[in-house]
Amino acid sequence: MANFQLSDAFLEAIQTLIGAEKDKKLRQKLNDLHYADIAEIIEALTAEEALYVIKLLDSEKTADALAEVDEDLREKILKQLSAKEIAEEVEELDTDDAADIIGELPSERQEKVLSQIEDTAHEKDIRELLRYKENTAGSLMAKELVKVHEDLSVLKCVNAMRKQAAEVTRVHSIYVVNEDNQLLGRLSLKDLLTANSRAVVKDICIPKVDHVHVDEDVEEVAKVMSKYDLEAIPVVNDKKQLLGRITIDDIVDVIKEEADKDYQLAAGISNDVEADDSIIELTRARLPWLFLGLLGGLGSVFILKDFETVMNKPELRSLFFYTPLIAAMAGNVGVQSSAIIVQGLANDIVKGSLLERLFKEVGLSLINGFFLSLVLIGFGQIMGQAFILSLTVAIAMMGVIVMAALIGTFVPIILDKRGIDPAIATGPFITTANDIFGIFLFFFFAQIILGF
Amino acid sequence: MANFQLSDAFLEAIQTLIGAEKDKKLRQKLNDLHYADIAEIIEALTAEEALYVIKLLDSEKTADALAEVDEDLREKILKQLSAKEIAEEVEELDTDDAADIIGELPSERQEKVLSQIEDTAHEKDIRELLRYKENTAGSLMAKELVKVHEDLSVLKCVNAMRKQAAEVTRVHSIYVVNEDNQLLGRLSLKDLLTANSRAVVKDICIPKVDHVHVDEDVEEVAKVMSKYDLEAIPVVNDKKQLLGRITIDDIVDVIKEEADKDYQLAAGISNDVEADDSIIELTRARLPWLFLGLLGGLGSVFILKDFETVMNKPELRSLFFYTPLIAAMAGNVGVQSSAIIVQGLANDIVKGSLLERLFKEVGLSLINGFFLSLVLIGFGQIMGQAFILSLTVAIAMMGVIVMAALIGTFVPIILDKRGIDPAIATGPFITTANDIFGIFLFFFFAQIILGF
Repeated sequence: MANFQLSDAFLEAIQTLIGAEKDKKLRQKLNDLHYADIAEIIEALTAEEALYVIKLLDSEKTADALAEVDEDLREKILKQLSAKEIAEEVEELDTDDAADIIGELPSERQEKVLSQIEDTAHEKDIRELLRYKENTAGSLMAKELVKVHEDLSVLKCVNAMRKQAAEVTRVHSIYVVNEDNQLLGRLSLKDLLTANSRAVVKDICIPKVDHVHVDEDVEEVAKVMSKYDLEAIPVVNDKKQLLGRITIDDIVDVIKEEADKDYQLAAGISNDVEADDSIIELTRARLPWLFLGLLGGLGSVFILKDFETVMNKPELRSLFFYTPLIAAMAGNVGVQSSAIIVQGLANDIVKGSLLERLFKEVGLSLINGFFLSLVLIGFGQIMGQAFILSLTVAIAMMGVIVMAALIGTFVPIILDKRGIDPAIATGPFITTANDIFGIFLFFFFAQIILGF
Repeated sequence: MANFQLSDAFLEAIQTLIGAEKDKKLRQKLNDLHYADIAEIIEALTAEEALYVIKLLDSEKTADALAEVDEDLREKILKQLSAKEIAEEVEELDTDDAADIIGELPSERQEKVLSQIEDTAHEKDIRELLRYKENTAGSLMAKELVKVHEDLSVLKCVNAMRKQAAEVTRVHSIYVVNEDNQLLGRLSLKDLLTANSRAVVKDICIPKVDHVHVDEDVEEVAKVMSKYDLEAIPVVNDKKQLLGRITIDDIVDVIKEEADKDYQLAAGISNDVEADDSIIELTRARLPWLFLGLLGGLGSVFILKDFETVMNKPELRSLFFYTPLIAAMAGNVGVQSSAIIVQGLANDIVKGSLLERLFKEVGLSLINGFFLSLVLIGFGQIMGQAFILSLTVAIAMMGVIVMAALIGTFVPIILDKRGIDPAIATGPFITTANDIFGIFLFFFFAQIILGF
């Protein structure tokens, strides 16, 4: 691969040059790099060194790098820049990235930066984007796009496009609009390359064009774009007026963030944190779920206390030795079931009635439970444990597995139907609930069978 | 959104038409739909109905739909089609999709289908793609691309492109090669639109072009493409000869599959399963991990048995009530730590030395453990439990939390250094290990403090 790999030696060389303030050599070393590589270098530097590099290089180079770096680092750097300096960086960015960066600033600073932007059209576009709510198509789109009027000749169209294309980083589609800026269709570059030059835009316009409403949820946009393999999608308002477009690279980020969030929720981590965040941020993300787990654990202390008298019967004491096993099985089964359902809901592949699903989960649990019970009874026999005790533990475990699977399956479905993100149901939430229920059910079954 | 939404009514209408064999009406209803929508409809039908639709519609329409549907369903449909029929479908597909479908067939059928493909160039390309190993750039790339010779004039270039473009679904980049088919650079459509028509390709060629080696791992390709926001990347061999190109829509699928796999591993599910897979498939994916959990649980039975005599001392019996709590905390902390590290490793953001990370995790655990201990001691006081017992449980819990965090952090790092996918370390693996260690440590600490 001909791609840049940040080596320790290269990084050290950069740091030495910064320390010695050898600006010319620094520029030489950095100017030919891709902005994504510069972003990588900046992230490896201290905040002060990063600031030095940002101030040294042209905005043309650093603006995109700044848009790429970690939000925490960007905040530190922007604090050290004047409103004028931030405006210069923002001027180099597409409107979507520009709005993202300005949106992160404290609101009084936002106004200062916006008023320093020299290109008033750019400023107006950014102001518009800042108005859209987070996680809507509007918040993700860029204003930069190529559009042509339906009545234009193909020749004039190419000229109009040339002008516009100079402003747009990448031309995906050429959108066709009428005099009210309503989206009528699109042109493919391919068709344009092969069109008769006397033709009019209308003639080669493809009237079918996928589009999303400006208030649409970004996850929905991601689904549409990946279902139809789109690389860009136009965004319209209620009147079907063309407002902007969303490109696939932004969607890739949405998909990744969504996956990371679900994974973290499943692991009991709230907030978006990374391995290199501060201890305080990491504590805030992790402590609440551990606290929930602790409450669950204290709940099981209560339940077990209720059965304390069982300890007076030496032949039944072993029941207590099985409590961690029961809790673990309940937790594991619950997480498995909920993870499959959460994924299924996310990909729209949970079909069939609730009753069918119920039968399936019960069937699955009975098969799994049966095999595991055999192992458990075998273990009891080897250990010289009373058969009735092994059988009791095995039966109780089957019951717990069925119950855990049902909770794991239906909690996410119910949450989803109520419009709550079902991903929250995986992880500690399900584990904790299942721990308590599991232990309770276990002793409940044992009590019935053994009659204590 | 102007997109197709599959309604129950529409589906029923389709099923009725299939039942009554009203081919003409069926064609009317389906022919205008996007292939992704047809795929969605096919997935909602029974396998027989799906087969009926596939046979009814033109290959032009169904080939892409067939490439989109779930692998299990495709297998069922392909079994019912003759080699000739499959070859007709495959003929309509780009080489990458064609190779994917043929690769899924039993090897003796592959040969039969390949020999029925009429376009010999297409057949040769597919045969080449079938040779690349799974999860390499070669297995993901398509042979379809637009390339021009460096010495061509811009005018001739446009003509050459027109011809090639007719064969390529989407033109991303125009690659420039020499007479040995070695990749020299690329042309941007934008530059081509604005170029002087007397210029030669060489003049407007952008020599810097990201590319990947044909044996590169697909995850690595995904990283490069998303880092540099690429929509297509050319694939080359050792001699830098242009072999094919990978497009971003395939990468989106790779990213999603990767995320799903990690999520399932964290939840204790091996193999790639979906909510709607058969009970047997789901059992095979889930039982092994449950078995592992069971073994862990049996391990803790052993440990607890060792401390059975503690039950003879009524004032210490409560220790047993806390075992599920201890096991749960150990499991939760371990999963949190490992999930953060696994994500960090995947995104290359785990920096600093192992020693720094060790200090950070211990610090984090002590903070979390301290708060949770306070709650635990408060609970003990309210319950009228001996203070020394509460204190013992609290101290032991702190020890268990620190241990669990360290295991959760370092197991993935060690696995990663040895080239094993660290994602396997999250989920049941960590939970089970931590359950056993946690319970052992808990009684070990209690024994030291309380001296039983």
